[in-house]
Amino acid sequence: MTQTNQQWGGRFTESTDAFVQAFTASVSFDRRMYRQDIAGSLAHATMLHEAGVLSAADHAAIVQGLEAIRDEIERGEFDWSVALEDVHMNIEARLTARIGDAGKRLHTGRSRNDQVATDIRLYLRDAIDAILAELRRLQGGLVDLAEREADTIMPGFTHLQVAQPVTFGHHLLAWFEQLKRDSGRLRDCRARLNLCPLGAAALAGTTYPIDRQRSAELLGFSGPTENSLDSVSDRDFAIELCAAGALLMTHLSRFSEELVLWASAQFGFVDIPDRFCTGSSIMPQKKNPDVPELVRGKAGRVNGHLVALLTLMKGQPLAYNKDNQEDKEPLFDTVDTLLGSLRAFADMVPALRARPERMRAAARQGFATATDLADYLVRKGVAFRDAHEIVGKAVRLGVDSGRDLAEMTLDELRGFSAVIEADVFACLTLEGSVAARDHYGATAPAQVRAAVARARAWLATD
Amino acid sequence: MTQTNQQWGGRFTESTDAFVQAFTASVSFDRRMYRQDIAGSLAHATMLHEAGVLSAADHAAIVQGLEAIRDEIERGEFDWSVALEDVHMNIEARLTARIGDAGKRLHTGRSRNDQVATDIRLYLRDAIDAILAELRRLQGGLVDLAEREADTIMPGFTHLQVAQPVTFGHHLLAWFEQLKRDSGRLRDCRARLNLCPLGAAALAGTTYPIDRQRSAELLGFSGPTENSLDSVSDRDFAIELCAAGALLMTHLSRFSEELVLWASAQFGFVDIPDRFCTGSSIMPQKKNPDVPELVRGKAGRVNGHLVALLTLMKGQPLAYNKDNQEDKEPLFDTVDTLLGSLRAFADMVPALRARPERMRAAARQGFATATDLADYLVRKGVAFRDAHEIVGKAVRLGVDSGRDLAEMTLDELRGFSAVIEADVFACLTLEGSVAARDHYGATAPAQVRAAVARARAWLATD
Amino acid sequence: MTQTNQQWGGRFTESTDAFVQAFTASVSFDRRMYRQDIAGSLAHATMLHEAGVLSAADHAAIVQGLEAIRDEIERGEFDWSVALEDVHMNIEARLTARIGDAGKRLHTGRSRNDQVATDIRLYLRDAIDAILAELRRLQGGLVDLAEREADTIMPGFTHLQVAQPVTFGHHLLAWFEQLKRDSGRLRDCRARLNLCPLGAAALAGTTYPIDRQRSAELLGFSGPTENSLDSVSDRDFAIELCAAGALLMTHLSRFSEELVLWASAQFGFVDIPDRFCTGSSIMPQKKNPDVPELVRGKAGRVNGHLVALLTLMKGQPLAYNKDNQEDKEPLFDTVDTLLGSLRAFADMVPALRARPERMRAAARQGFATATDLADYLVRKGVAFRDAHEIVGKAVRLGVDSGRDLAEMTLDELRGFSAVIEADVFACLTLEGSVAARDHYGATAPAQVRAAVARARAWLATD
Amino acid sequence: MTQTNQQWGGRFTESTDAFVQAFTASVSFDRRMYRQDIAGSLAHATMLHEAGVLSAADHAAIVQGLEAIRDEIERGEFDWSVALEDVHMNIEARLTARIGDAGKRLHTGRSRNDQVATDIRLYLRDAIDAILAELRRLQGGLVDLAEREADTIMPGFTHLQVAQPVTFGHHLLAWFEQLKRDSGRLRDCRARLNLCPLGAAALAGTTYPIDRQRSAELLGFSGPTENSLDSVSDRDFAIELCAAGALLMTHLSRFSEELVLWASAQFGFVDIPDRFCTGSSIMPQKKNPDVPELVRGKAGRVNGHLVALLTLMKGQPLAYNKDNQEDKEPLFDTVDTLLGSLRAFADMVPALRARPERMRAAARQGFATATDLADYLVRKGVAFRDAHEIVGKAVRLGVDSGRDLAEMTLDELRGFSAVIEADVFACLTLEGSVAARDHYGATAPAQVRAAVARARAWLATD
Repeated sequence: MTQTNQQWGGRFTESTDAFVQAFTASVSFDRRMYRQDIAGSLAHATMLHEAGVLSAADHAAIVQGLEAIRDEIERGEFDWSVALEDVHMNIEARLTARIGDAGKRLHTGRSRNDQVATDIRLYLRDAIDAILAELRRLQGGLVDLAEREADTIMPGFTHLQVAQPVTFGHHLLAWFEQLKRDSGRLRDCRARLNLCPLGAAALAGTTYPIDRQRSAELLGFSGPTENSLDSVSDRDFAIELCAAGALLMTHLSRFSEELVLWASAQFGFVDIPDRFCTGSSIMPQKKNPDVPELVRGKAGRVNGHLVALLTLMKGQPLAYNKDNQEDKEPLFDTVDTLLGSLRAFADMVPALRARPERMRAAARQGFATATDLADYLVRKGVAFRDAHEIVGKAVRLGVDSGRDLAEMTLDELRGFSAVIEADVFACLTLEGSVAARDHYGATAPAQVRAAVARARAWLATD
Repeated sequence: MTQTNQQWGGRFTESTDAFVQAFTASVSFDRRMYRQDIAGSLAHATMLHEAGVLSAADHAAIVQGLEAIRDEIERGEFDWSVALEDVHMNIEARLTARIGDAGKRLHTGRSRNDQVATDIRLYLRDAIDAILAELRRLQGGLVDLAEREADTIMPGFTHLQVAQPVTFGHHLLAWFEQLKRDSGRLRDCRARLNLCPLGAAALAGTTYPIDRQRSAELLGFSGPTENSLDSVSDRDFAIELCAAGALLMTHLSRFSEELVLWASAQFGFVDIPDRFCTGSSIMPQKKNPDVPELVRGKAGRVNGHLVALLTLMKGQPLAYNKDNQEDKEPLFDTVDTLLGSLRAFADMVPALRARPERMRAAARQGFATATDLADYLVRKGVAFRDAHEIVGKAVRLGVDSGRDLAEMTLDELRGFSAVIEADVFACLTLEGSVAARDHYGATAPAQVRAAVARARAWLATD
Repeated sequence: MTQTNQQWGGRFTESTDAFVQAFTASVSFDRRMYRQDIAGSLAHATMLHEAGVLSAADHAAIVQGLEAIRDEIERGEFDWSVALEDVHMNIEARLTARIGDAGKRLHTGRSRNDQVATDIRLYLRDAIDAILAELRRLQGGLVDLAEREADTIMPGFTHLQVAQPVTFGHHLLAWFEQLKRDSGRLRDCRARLNLCPLGAAALAGTTYPIDRQRSAELLGFSGPTENSLDSVSDRDFAIELCAAGALLMTHLSRFSEELVLWASAQFGFVDIPDRFCTGSSIMPQKKNPDVPELVRGKAGRVNGHLVALLTLMKGQPLAYNKDNQEDKEPLFDTVDTLLGSLRAFADMVPALRARPERMRAAARQGFATATDLADYLVRKGVAFRDAHEIVGKAVRLGVDSGRDLAEMTLDELRGFSAVIEADVFACLTLEGSVAARDHYGATAPAQVRAAVARARAWLATD
Repeated sequence: MTQTNQQWGGRFTESTDAFVQAFTASVSFDRRMYRQDIAGSLAHATMLHEAGVLSAADHAAIVQGLEAIRDEIERGEFDWSVALEDVHMNIEARLTARIGDAGKRLHTGRSRNDQVATDIRLYLRDAIDAILAELRRLQGGLVDLAEREADTIMPGFTHLQVAQPVTFGHHLLAWFEQLKRDSGRLRDCRARLNLCPLGAAALAGTTYPIDRQRSAELLGFSGPTENSLDSVSDRDFAIELCAAGALLMTHLSRFSEELVLWASAQFGFVDIPDRFCTGSSIMPQKKNPDVPELVRGKAGRVNGHLVALLTLMKGQPLAYNKDNQEDKEPLFDTVDTLLGSLRAFADMVPALRARPERMRAAARQGFATATDLADYLVRKGVAFRDAHEIVGKAVRLGVDSGRDLAEMTLDELRGFSAVIEADVFACLTLEGSVAARDHYGATAPAQVRAAVARARAWLATD
């Protein structure tokens, strides 16, 4: 026989169906917010006491009771009950069991609607801080590696075709920039959500003389939310975090794709240490880049959660609806996915070993300095579009005869344009090509070192 | 200190990083496929034995060992190990611990790649059968209710504006039709996935003299898959199931929306029994339609899983990649969501109580028989578009004077068109309107009863 | 016979397939960026001239030529060619046709990769400003309406069940808050994208002595982008805008849902003027709330574009790939959808007419002041949870006897709790209930007016 | 001054706002269904005539008028009007202009709701047939190429690491299998949508003595739809097509990824002819695989449309709502994307040129025959798991000494296991490895040829 939730049973003539009770309960996943729930209740009780709504004795009992419950939970001794639906009711019922009537007075001037909104915001604030810390660790690893590899030449690709030589350090800093934007989005999201819904109560505010500024202050919020109806129906923060997370995971999926390519026998640009790889149950020779592959796959998960939440909120009338209970699982899994993926990458990136000789060999393929030849011609007075056409013909000869531009004779090259002279060969080397791209944001080793310095400064003040 | 998986460690010089091991392990969620994994191994062992690859003694030991392990798992006595990565390795390691070298011979001629593909297909086949059973139960409930309410008149809405009177039974059968298509999609998906990948091995097939038709037969598949590379890289079945599931949940979200509307004080068309509702922690009068609200919200979750899987597979080169491990959680949660939501609805629908007097009162509002007046005019020789214009003017008078068309005098009506005579009032009643729509698929009670009969026949042969 | 693009044909031995040319061309949609493309080219030319790369004569010819081309386009006299692929090549080819060799020198030190990245950022910057203007207009309309309706009482809903009375002005301000967050997200997105990629060239920077700070300054960017590889491969801005747009449209879908509900005969809370509605081809009486319905539907479109872009970027290796051409259509349609939907709402909201008597009648239903009775009991010393139980029983009597709490006798009420006295009836009125929720963010008319003042201040400094 | 649509204006007191008229009109995109709209009207008119509702003269006038209008449209002489909202109203207004009152009688017994549902189903039926034709053409190309390359050895990859040798023909048939499932899904979708909604009218059916079976028959449907409310509110077919399309595009994205990889200098497995590639505006040497890149990107677009439609339908109450107008653009663009992408691939695949020497060289890398060595050991009596461990150690020696297994001496190999004898080298060749995988669905050339024959048989009866 089903136990009916005593918190709202007065008006009901039959007990909740047992399956319905399990189907609609959220305690299996929302209990992960127990710390935030207790912190919110402690602040609420303190505010109520200061406002004269709760006696000193009740307040003291509540504080002591909630802290004891937190200990119980952390010791694994708390008995979570599905019949009590959610983390809020479980803790409140336990509080009343421990301290009696004072426990029944805690819920004065609030509702589960503003309580859960407060809990999630507190939870997300903590989660974002943890994500930012792992993100920064990964960024730090990238900057260090970029500095180490500032002179290492590799082919730069567009369309996965060799385009122009770049430095490996420069490539790594491209990853850094992507993460810098992610960091910005996460901090914007944090600032926007850091408002306290407590006091919105069910939807309209409460008749008790509460002090919402005080509740906000006690919980470290920058202030109270503006509108009670909005406070209990808003889930923007969840969607905004998932959107920022989806973009972050998309970035990690792009790094992963490159690592998987680079770890292939065909590219062979990097070695990923064994401890980040796994083997095969059947093919004894295999060493698979599991971490980047798995992280690449996990991008799907966060895209999915974002869509889940957008679908969830679409067309919902105000204020709170039960649908909103579905906000938590996608959100929690997004947080876990971001933390895990960032941690794996932050651990792995410093351990990557470049294979400069493979990178260099690949950069020599594919006429990587063709643009340099075109630029040379322009400096000799040829219009850019004409230079492009001239070099195109030289490349066609190279394709047909299996040679790079640097391997042609001066006479052959002059056959394409009479302005070409012996100094052309200096600009057809990899080092010459890379060093010549020497402006803000470009690939020359000196620019990479300057960018590393700027990145370090950003990390220091971040 | 991390234990390295003994199944593939030979080539490795360092152990897997402990966090990486936990991060990449799947046993926490794929162990739900233990029955399918054991069934697949039993079939594989039998086929190997019949093909002369496995001795009778080894085969017997494996069969006995696997059955014992299944019992251990079902008794909750199996010790799942994250170090052993997944359900397959956990069971195989335990088998070898129990029966010795024979256990090491089970994996002959297969790989985890074809093993997991087989497990998922077996799992999904069972899951689809369970989903279809709940779907059929819900459809049965709808047909019964539709028959009971075949004569009950309610307003039919377009744009949430009263359009024309319909019967409640007719409306319920619209839901039935949606589910009938869902049923078809699920069965198409089941037929398409019911092929056996065993023997594809890692990606290329195996050098052992296996009999793939036999493996397929032993597991109830309609045959072996056609191509070994495709067999280990294909995840169409997961996406197709999620797509069918997303549409099914979209349908349930639409039913839910209507139930929530109908249970509101403003509509008041149905009562949902207390046992499918919950109350409020603060507002003692509340009785909230939790089940439809939650199911409406759960549509988001399945849309999300569909997107997760599509993102996952986008741009993956053949054959198996570690990314694919991410297929399981969205799939399992989709199955759970469909089963739970259908069960809740199948339980709830027969208990819905219509409130015919509220439905009738609402149908009287909003000039629901205006189309009937237009049709009347057409029968008297007015062109449809002119009739539409005439009735529009009569409605404007009704809006201005607060009266329905049936409440106007004959003279007033004749003021709009001289062809109107006293017989007009017969077609302005709700019963007259509904009964007049008397063709295949229309709302007349007789047609609803005929549709109920056809639905029952479909259910009987389904 | 297909014309091969002369800009890159030198190395090719056969012309592009005609269907492939049409299939891969983007000019049909990217020509909408012609203003930005020309502005970018003008800035690039000026910078090149200042850097000594381009002569004064060439610079002058280019400026005059580009301005003439802009005029041609705006007069509808420009002949767009699919053979020239995109907006960039079309304009450059026309420039060379007009001014000869100077036109061929414009592309010195840049590539289409940095050119298109610059164009999109310029385009989005303009688009965001236009969106913010419409958003602000809608917010202004909401604030004015909220002030007008600050005292109008309507039922507040949770679970679409009457919960507590609120004021209509308060409800409208909930919408305002949602839009305020949207505004913040759009401005964050604008700030993050306002960096100039010019100079990144194909991917590695250029060998010419360019001044990226100067290009940025000429185009009103806050500075150059940091990394050339990132500059040509980054599409974060497109995804971030779509994510902000998806949330904004989700908000509009929620307003729309409420307007559709409120415009129904069952609710009847608002009238939407005829000019925002349409009728039916068959039912003469219909007046359908087309604008909110269509906007509600359009939320799907932007969610879709967000998913399209996330899928697009998933797993792409650096730097530019042809896939990226797919970024524009979803982005442009998102911009159009946001502008159109906001404009329609900004026009419609000031014209909404509340029907206070219907709102009031609905608020009297559903025991909307039950929480007030519970709060009354608490003030008399009853613990909140006990008060909740007592009121639940009173509500059950009300349901059974068809009466509101205010319609019971004092004796009946005292039957539930002896602390109840004659003063109870004051707190059971709608006005009393609303006025009693008198703190920051709550629904009391005085608080609504204070919130209106804060909203006006925000709009003034926005 | 805005022209109000005369079809429903009777009840309205003000004209539609001009912007609202443009915002809500659909004629700009739904006019692509003009053929289907006219075909539907012709069938409806014929049925009405046969049912005695429409005179022979009216019927003849309507038929002649509609055919003339179709000619006008196809000659580009039809003047589409936004004020007339959609394709239906445009054609009907023109009909009445041409033939007078008979035109006004065409809409008898139907509504735009069943009319548009009919049009879309007819349109999709045609679209699916066209898609299936291109799909079959691509499949045919794959089968031909697979036959040609049945003996060509390439490395098979898992985790983008060389796993085991396979034949190129076998790899191509993996693609064929994916498309075979797509074909099945499209045909299932076609069968499910091939029902006629005509007669559902606005939502409830009509009072005229219509014959829905006859309408269905005239239009080639397999029968009428079952329920009028469902008929006008169902958009399953659109979602099901987009879901099938998303999976098809996901497959093409996977082929594309492989083609991009294979066309890279690092892999070099295939040449894509110049006519399917484009060049660079700045790098004269580039030849970019534009077609596969663009198709890979277009997978995003269809995923997006699927999400758009799922979001659109989520939570919509019955029956028709204006939201549904948003179904068409995603659907049409999905159709265009599928047709274009399949056409590009069907053109390109037969022109692909394999580079067998590069494939072979790659297959020799990476210890591709390690599994063969393990299988050899098993055949000599070693348990599989022990064999795996032994080969793992041999591979580690190979990695350390830079040699393949086939390059070790017999003594070295015997150092790992004494059962190894001179016959081991036969199973370490690529040809031996491939030929040994000789069962249904495996990679041996004989099996590939058998699979080609089965594929041809399937295509013949498809």
